[in-house]
Amino acid sequence: MNLRLVGPTPLPPTVRDALARPMLNHRGPEFAAMQTRIVNSLQHYFQTAHDILLFTCSGTGGLEAALVNLLSPGDAVVAVSIGVFGDRFADIAEAFGAQTHRLRFPWGSAADPDALRAKLAEIKNARAVLITHNETSTATTNPLQELARVAHENSDALLLVDAISSMGAIHLPVDEWGVDVAVTGSQKVWMIPPGLAMVSVSPRAWDAYAHARMPRYYWDFKKMRDAIAKGQTSFTPGVNLYFALDAALDLMNAEGFENIRARHARLAQHTRDGAQTRGFELFADPKFASNTVTALRVPPGVNGKKWRQVLNQTFDTVIAGGQKELTDKIVRIGHLGWVNEAELDACLDAMTAALPYAQAN
Amino acid sequence: MNLRLVGPTPLPPTVRDALARPMLNHRGPEFAAMQTRIVNSLQHYFQTAHDILLFTCSGTGGLEAALVNLLSPGDAVVAVSIGVFGDRFADIAEAFGAQTHRLRFPWGSAADPDALRAKLAEIKNARAVLITHNETSTATTNPLQELARVAHENSDALLLVDAISSMGAIHLPVDEWGVDVAVTGSQKVWMIPPGLAMVSVSPRAWDAYAHARMPRYYWDFKKMRDAIAKGQTSFTPGVNLYFALDAALDLMNAEGFENIRARHARLAQHTRDGAQTRGFELFADPKFASNTVTALRVPPGVNGKKWRQVLNQTFDTVIAGGQKELTDKIVRIGHLGWVNEAELDACLDAMTAALPYAQAN
Repeated sequence: MNLRLVGPTPLPPTVRDALARPMLNHRGPEFAAMQTRIVNSLQHYFQTAHDILLFTCSGTGGLEAALVNLLSPGDAVVAVSIGVFGDRFADIAEAFGAQTHRLRFPWGSAADPDALRAKLAEIKNARAVLITHNETSTATTNPLQELARVAHENSDALLLVDAISSMGAIHLPVDEWGVDVAVTGSQKVWMIPPGLAMVSVSPRAWDAYAHARMPRYYWDFKKMRDAIAKGQTSFTPGVNLYFALDAALDLMNAEGFENIRARHARLAQHTRDGAQTRGFELFADPKFASNTVTALRVPPGVNGKKWRQVLNQTFDTVIAGGQKELTDKIVRIGHLGWVNEAELDACLDAMTAALPYAQAN
Repeated sequence: MNLRLVGPTPLPPTVRDALARPMLNHRGPEFAAMQTRIVNSLQHYFQTAHDILLFTCSGTGGLEAALVNLLSPGDAVVAVSIGVFGDRFADIAEAFGAQTHRLRFPWGSAADPDALRAKLAEIKNARAVLITHNETSTATTNPLQELARVAHENSDALLLVDAISSMGAIHLPVDEWGVDVAVTGSQKVWMIPPGLAMVSVSPRAWDAYAHARMPRYYWDFKKMRDAIAKGQTSFTPGVNLYFALDAALDLMNAEGFENIRARHARLAQHTRDGAQTRGFELFADPKFASNTVTALRVPPGVNGKKWRQVLNQTFDTVIAGGQKELTDKIVRIGHLGWVNEAELDACLDAMTAALPYAQAN
C-alpha cells in the first residue's frame, strides 16, 4: 500500500523487525541503555542540550503534558492558531483553566509575527505562547524563528511548540530559538508506529514547573525526569516502540540530519511541482508551504471523499482528506519519514487516474 | 529469557508477527473493523454489555482517566489500599483535588469489607470508592465481590476498580458486581506490549460524567466513545498494539475464557506449591493469594537485589523485586499471560540454584 498520510508513516523493514523483538524487563539494564541511546539521539535532532522526556501516548498527550506541567489555572496564554492543531492546543489550555487568548489566522496562511507582537502588547501578562510549528491540517509551516523572537522580545512568556510533524525534518534548533517545550510524535518523521510523544524541556520551563499548579500525575515532568535519570520511566513504557525508535534512529543517524532535512525539502518540492504539472492547485501560501505535507484543492467537479475512496480501493493509495471547514475541499499528501520520489510520483499518478471515477455526482 | 515479571509479559509468536505488520490508515475501514472485533472481545472478558474505551497509555493513564472523567475537585472519595498501586490510585485522586480518604491495610493482607462499611458510614458523602482488584506489589487479590456489595449497600458512590493485573484471568464480572469503571493494561493478561489501557464505563458512570468537572482532554471519555462509534479513536491510536491485541484475543478466544481463568488458578497453585516445596516462604495472606503473581519472602542471609541480579545475568531469568517498604524483603514471580508450568518450574529451580551466589554480605 502507498500510505501517504501525514502520519502514521510507513515502517522501514528494520523497524518492523525491531517491533517484533521479544519483550524485556523495562526496569533492567538493557532498557536503560536503550533509553540513553534514544535520548542522546533525540537531543541531536531537537538541537538541545537539555532534557528530553518520553511519554507513552499520542502527540496530543505530549501537548497536554506541556501545558499542565508549566501553567496554573487562570494563567493567560496566547494561542497562535493557523488550523485544526493550533485550535487543539488552545482547546487543551482552555480545558485546564488557562485564560486562553486565541490569535487565529486564515487557514492556508501562516501566523503573522506583527500580529503576535500586537497581541502580546494587549495581553500584558501572558505566561505562555502556544505555537504550532508545522500545521498538518493546512500543510503550512509557521515562521517559527520570527514568532519566537517576537514572543521573547515582547514578553516573559514561555514558548510551547507543537513540533509533532516537523521535528527532525524541518529546521528547528530548540535551544537557539528559545523553545521552552517542543513536542513531537513517534508516528511522524521518526518512522515508527504511534504511541510515543517526545518532549524537550528547557531550564526556564523547569523554573515554571516549580510554581505550576495545573493538576497532573501521568504527565508529570519531574517524575519522568527522575525516572529517566535511573534508566527507567515514571510508568510502564511502550517497550516495543522503544525497540522501534532505537532502530529508526540508527537509520536516521546513518543518513545524517542535514541529509534528512535536505531530503524532506527536496521531496516537498518534488510533490508540489508534480502536483502542479498534473494540473492540481496548491492550497497553502507558497511562501510557507510545508516540507512534510502538501495540501491540494479538490478539483472542481470532483467529490473529495469519493476521490480518496477510489484511490484506496482501486489504486491501493491512501491520502488524507481535509479536516473541519476544509473537509472535502482539500486533500493532503504526507511526504515525511520513510518515503521517496517514486512513491510520491505513483501517488500523484494514481490521483490523476482516479479523477474520472470521483465525479461530484 | 524466562521473563517472569507481573508485566510486561512474554509475547506469543503470532503476537510478535502482528506487531511487525505494515502500518495502515488509522481512519480507514480496516482499522474500524479491527477495533470493533477488539471491543467485542473485550466486552466478553470484562463481562459487560456496556462501553469499552481504549486509550494509548500505560495502565496508570487508565486510572487517571477513570478519575478525571467522573469526579470534580473537592469530591470525597474513599481509596482502599493494600499496597503500592492502591496508594497510586489515591495519589492520582489527590493530585486532581479530590478529598481523598485513605483506607489502608497492612501489606500482604486484603481489604476488610467491614472496615469499608465503617469508613463509608464515617464519610457520608463519598462520591467514589477506589479499589485495586489485584494488588501487584503484594501479590494479593482483594475480595472485590464483597467490597463491591458493601460499597453499593452503604453509599451511592461510584465503584472504580484497578483491574490492571487481574482482568481476563481472575473472576471479575463487571456488570454483575456493579463496577462502574474497570481498567486493565495491555502488557498483563493480554500478552502484548505495554501502551494500551482498556476501560469499561457503566451507564451510571456516564451519568456522573455529565456533571464531573475535573479537567480533562486526552482522557475524555465522551470524545473517545464518539470516535469509537465512527470506527476511530479520539487521538491517534497505538496502531501496532491494536494489531497485536487483535491477534492475542484470537489466541484467548480459541483457548476459552473459562480455560484461561482455570489455567491461571492452576499456575498460581503450581507456583505456590513449588515455592514451598523448595523451602521458600509465601508473603501474601494465603486466603487472598493472587492468581497472577506470587510474592516470596527473601530468605534470611540472602540479598534480594543480588539474587535478582544473579538470576538475570547467570540464569537468564527475570523476576520482580519488592517495591517501597518491601524493597529487598520480597521477590515476585508473575504467572499471567503467555506462561506454562515448565517455565515456572525453571524459574523456581533457577531461584534455588542462584541462592548460594546471593549472600547478604
